[in-house]
Amino acid sequence: MNVSIVGATGYGGLELIRFLGNHPHLEIASLHTSSQFGRNIYEENAHLMHMDYKLEEIDAEAIAKKSDIVFLATPSGVSSKLISEFCDLNIKVIDLSGDLRLQTPGEYAQWYKKEPAPQHIIEKAVYGLAEWNKEQIEQADIIANPGCYPTATLLGLAPLFTEGWATGEDVIVDAKSGVSGAGKSPTAVTHYSEMNENFKIYKVNQHQHIPEVEQQLGRWFADTKPITFNTHLVPMTRGIMATMYVKVNRQTTKAELRDLFETVYANHPFVRIQPLGQFPSTKQVYGSNFCDIGVDYDERTGRVTIVSVIDNLVKGAAGQAIQNANILMGLKETAGLWSAPLYP
Amino acid sequence: MNVSIVGATGYGGLELIRFLGNHPHLEIASLHTSSQFGRNIYEENAHLMHMDYKLEEIDAEAIAKKSDIVFLATPSGVSSKLISEFCDLNIKVIDLSGDLRLQTPGEYAQWYKKEPAPQHIIEKAVYGLAEWNKEQIEQADIIANPGCYPTATLLGLAPLFTEGWATGEDVIVDAKSGVSGAGKSPTAVTHYSEMNENFKIYKVNQHQHIPEVEQQLGRWFADTKPITFNTHLVPMTRGIMATMYVKVNRQTTKAELRDLFETVYANHPFVRIQPLGQFPSTKQVYGSNFCDIGVDYDERTGRVTIVSVIDNLVKGAAGQAIQNANILMGLKETAGLWSAPLYP
Amino acid sequence: MNVSIVGATGYGGLELIRFLGNHPHLEIASLHTSSQFGRNIYEENAHLMHMDYKLEEIDAEAIAKKSDIVFLATPSGVSSKLISEFCDLNIKVIDLSGDLRLQTPGEYAQWYKKEPAPQHIIEKAVYGLAEWNKEQIEQADIIANPGCYPTATLLGLAPLFTEGWATGEDVIVDAKSGVSGAGKSPTAVTHYSEMNENFKIYKVNQHQHIPEVEQQLGRWFADTKPITFNTHLVPMTRGIMATMYVKVNRQTTKAELRDLFETVYANHPFVRIQPLGQFPSTKQVYGSNFCDIGVDYDERTGRVTIVSVIDNLVKGAAGQAIQNANILMGLKETAGLWSAPLYP
Amino acid sequence: MNVSIVGATGYGGLELIRFLGNHPHLEIASLHTSSQFGRNIYEENAHLMHMDYKLEEIDAEAIAKKSDIVFLATPSGVSSKLISEFCDLNIKVIDLSGDLRLQTPGEYAQWYKKEPAPQHIIEKAVYGLAEWNKEQIEQADIIANPGCYPTATLLGLAPLFTEGWATGEDVIVDAKSGVSGAGKSPTAVTHYSEMNENFKIYKVNQHQHIPEVEQQLGRWFADTKPITFNTHLVPMTRGIMATMYVKVNRQTTKAELRDLFETVYANHPFVRIQPLGQFPSTKQVYGSNFCDIGVDYDERTGRVTIVSVIDNLVKGAAGQAIQNANILMGLKETAGLWSAPLYP
Repeated sequence: MNVSIVGATGYGGLELIRFLGNHPHLEIASLHTSSQFGRNIYEENAHLMHMDYKLEEIDAEAIAKKSDIVFLATPSGVSSKLISEFCDLNIKVIDLSGDLRLQTPGEYAQWYKKEPAPQHIIEKAVYGLAEWNKEQIEQADIIANPGCYPTATLLGLAPLFTEGWATGEDVIVDAKSGVSGAGKSPTAVTHYSEMNENFKIYKVNQHQHIPEVEQQLGRWFADTKPITFNTHLVPMTRGIMATMYVKVNRQTTKAELRDLFETVYANHPFVRIQPLGQFPSTKQVYGSNFCDIGVDYDERTGRVTIVSVIDNLVKGAAGQAIQNANILMGLKETAGLWSAPLYP
Repeated sequence: MNVSIVGATGYGGLELIRFLGNHPHLEIASLHTSSQFGRNIYEENAHLMHMDYKLEEIDAEAIAKKSDIVFLATPSGVSSKLISEFCDLNIKVIDLSGDLRLQTPGEYAQWYKKEPAPQHIIEKAVYGLAEWNKEQIEQADIIANPGCYPTATLLGLAPLFTEGWATGEDVIVDAKSGVSGAGKSPTAVTHYSEMNENFKIYKVNQHQHIPEVEQQLGRWFADTKPITFNTHLVPMTRGIMATMYVKVNRQTTKAELRDLFETVYANHPFVRIQPLGQFPSTKQVYGSNFCDIGVDYDERTGRVTIVSVIDNLVKGAAGQAIQNANILMGLKETAGLWSAPLYP
Repeated sequence: MNVSIVGATGYGGLELIRFLGNHPHLEIASLHTSSQFGRNIYEENAHLMHMDYKLEEIDAEAIAKKSDIVFLATPSGVSSKLISEFCDLNIKVIDLSGDLRLQTPGEYAQWYKKEPAPQHIIEKAVYGLAEWNKEQIEQADIIANPGCYPTATLLGLAPLFTEGWATGEDVIVDAKSGVSGAGKSPTAVTHYSEMNENFKIYKVNQHQHIPEVEQQLGRWFADTKPITFNTHLVPMTRGIMATMYVKVNRQTTKAELRDLFETVYANHPFVRIQPLGQFPSTKQVYGSNFCDIGVDYDERTGRVTIVSVIDNLVKGAAGQAIQNANILMGLKETAGLWSAPLYP
Repeated sequence: MNVSIVGATGYGGLELIRFLGNHPHLEIASLHTSSQFGRNIYEENAHLMHMDYKLEEIDAEAIAKKSDIVFLATPSGVSSKLISEFCDLNIKVIDLSGDLRLQTPGEYAQWYKKEPAPQHIIEKAVYGLAEWNKEQIEQADIIANPGCYPTATLLGLAPLFTEGWATGEDVIVDAKSGVSGAGKSPTAVTHYSEMNENFKIYKVNQHQHIPEVEQQLGRWFADTKPITFNTHLVPMTRGIMATMYVKVNRQTTKAELRDLFETVYANHPFVRIQPLGQFPSTKQVYGSNFCDIGVDYDERTGRVTIVSVIDNLVKGAAGQAIQNANILMGLKETAGLWSAPLYP
């Protein structure tokens, strides 16, 4: 089966190329960018010097002829414009940006400060949280691949919200991300000398992933109240940790809580629940599609602590996109993705 | 005035030496360690090659003859043993460890898993949170210098707890620290290849600084409930950020909230309240004694967000210890400490 | 085909496990350590939680029954002792340590300050510089896998020394390595707070890889004089760059020089000669088995500059070991190793 | 005495502000930039929130009225234009850029690819290598403050070149710098995700500091041939190490060599010669004006190894500029600069 990538030279696109290079069933048919036509992918990306793909213009019809799936690995505000062209063609679309995730009219404009995609297309898009939405994904024409923070957060909160433990209130998510989440364009914030040996908070109480998380929590548990959600930049390239503090509707124990998570994710190979008393570090999923989760019940406060880590560019972007492609194509969910994290 | 340092070769001790080297009124009389006697400080610490101090044994009487103040910059479990010897001598003691901070019998043993100092000595120790305890510090013979996390946390929470905004419930502190807080001894956790490009959570819901924070909050607001408090290691050497989520007993606005903080700290030069809508990064206090605080009120959730940053080795250890020494000696609070952060 | 790993929990062993997990023909039969028997590999290595291998004692006979190849991924001074046991058994040995590399009696003791392996075994060991020693490797029973610095250095110098450009004099190698080269055991040098934001030189003019490089250069060009060779630690986990300054026996041009390298390595997929005027960074080979080389001729001084980068744990250790295993087993040289570097 | 800074918001300017904030005799009269007029220095530089200086336009006459010295902390290509205005006014100029360093007509244009300052002004500029040029500096009207690499390199090579050990040939300088040397403007090279966990070589054999080093070497030893000089970027913010390999005109010993250096720098407090067998790391001078040097003689090759480290922003820029200002004003050379490095 053939796939094309639009936005091939961004960090999401490059990760797709890395994984597809070893995929047993999906083959790269073409790479596309909005500039740099005619150059070879390795000319700007020296690490890919062993590969040989010419960068092409974005021509939806040509892409649809070559490929079964197109990945849109473009920044927010781009696929909202591109999506219409692909919609009527015989090709599946997996969009890695935030443009097709928010179903409620007005929310995208409010949080992204950009013009939304056509509402009728947004409504066709299936939210690609692979562990939780498999049946819908199998049938989808368009998949809105989840954001990096929402993936870590939702996989961590899901057992409470789907198994009847949630109160819907008092959900606090304190999330931390490596800098690659900010993308490939140099900025003052991501300038090495500013970011190195520094820890920053940003978009305080205003991150555009807030409504994405709340939307999915609301699907699982209708009476979900607004959550507290903040994001920080860690002086490292890859990795997200979401540390979550939640009140649940019962007294419990550390062991019972862990059992819940273990049971819920028993058949999901990419989610690895940590042993009792252990908590994941971001590096243990580095470069891989795993989401590792540790849980604790604090008897002093009655609060549950959930610690969820992913590689933001893999499970939080390209890896989950390929996982969705696998589901879509009826392949084994782990195809091309079952490799150990890079360590150390 | 003369000072001596016990535990001179640890990170806290080395920071004391750095600041005292430029202090206009306090002079280093002697440096002491539990080993390495007879060696010169620079032999193990190449950065101090321009200095010349022999490392001496720990002899309380000899120290008291030479110095007006002794800094105990030793790990937990050491000053609890040393303190008695200094107690009857004519010397002020500033203890940088956690050994003299917890006043409630049993708490130290419970959280530190070590034998406490004699209770009658603990009761003489004044908690050296310099901005909030100045009058007691001026009169103290023994100062329990606050922990790094408690300093960042308490300076951030103080305005709410002292000005009648606190409910005493729903205080969540998500704290992050550079690795130097773990001290100078190599461990698997702090091995470079393990810690670099990694973000870790540790001592989940069990950090020994929890009772220290709760004790001080309880002094400010008696009906304070157990807090949720977690700590993480950031791949950087210095810096702490405490991100705090608190429910207050009123509706407010971002501006009113900021005004509260600005007013409370108006006469405290080391606390710099950020402009409305701005939040501090750890690097902006690097190597300095500042505590920078930014605040937000989230209308969606009704929660206050407080972001407090310090350099863990300065305001969180040696810097505050010198600030306390200044207060104790009737010097200007900023003497020897008024230098700009290192940037970038 | 089955393989076993002795020293499975060190960084070299863990990298072997990572690559073998995706190898199409080689399968892990057993993992061995000198301690931790009975524990599972993931218990100490959380990143491998999706795997399931019990750690076993080192029993040469049992290993030889199970496996076609054993990788000795132990520190220097261990395989010199283990090797005899494996020697008479029907199993190929690939030793990742420095114990079997130096053929001249006395050199090992002089540079490693340890007791050497039996000389008759050392003489059986083939130096596994895969691109240059393929025919001997195919026939070998024991392979001495090259050191990390020698791999980067020798692949960079080989074209000059094998194609008649060398003078044998004036070879200066200034090498820089990520910290993982120092292994997994915590030390003062590799303590995070000491190594972070620091650049160090070590073992000045005394690194044990010097005789290994000179031995191979001498095979290529008999009249090779002692080289200048120094090593530095870079505050990063992975990657080696060897910057080399060499006088050659002719005047040349940048283009002619590059052509030489391009031609010599034309059929070696893991060596990627950079375009004229481009030089590699360590990150462009991160996690991969590539060695990327850039060259320059400085008309002002008449010196050639060669810049060679590898991932010290892959091409400099586990990756080249698997490459050697592939050659030994008659497999495609790239089997299990043909994956793109992790970027960014 | 009053000083002004032009280019106050760059990294060099900010370091000047940091040191001048604690200088006993020099006071900041005004700060100037080419943009941002009217804003306060702390508005763009949160770490300076305890300070209060308005950013002003660059008006040479106004500056000369207020100040005894003006520091030009602007990028190359700026002070070449500004310098004429200051030249006829009653003010000393210390230029931190490379614009006034190269005395040979044509060299600046060749290496910097920019238009040079007027030649008659360049000829008035004294090269401010403080340890070696003190008498000229005392009399100077214009000081060309040395580059960061040349400072580390020349302080390391000086004893050989001034004491008759040099041959003038076979000087190889392999230099490594933290990223702050690249300045404050974000670029693709200094983007965090590209530079982190990466080690890069750049401007191979073409760095603009080459002629600056050669010019000074030529003053010390007329028959100096072109040197080999290369520069690398280390994933850290501050610090330069120059590793130098030199042939000398005699056989020597490690001890004799070290004695030479010790003697030459006996009266220079900022140069700290390491004990025999020890070599400096960049971190041991972090944030300070020290230059630490270690030396070795390699009997195997007859080459001398010199390892010289500085903080590129201090001894390599702002610190040396203030040292020059001290000399110029007849102050103690160490005034305002005598503080311990930040460690760890």
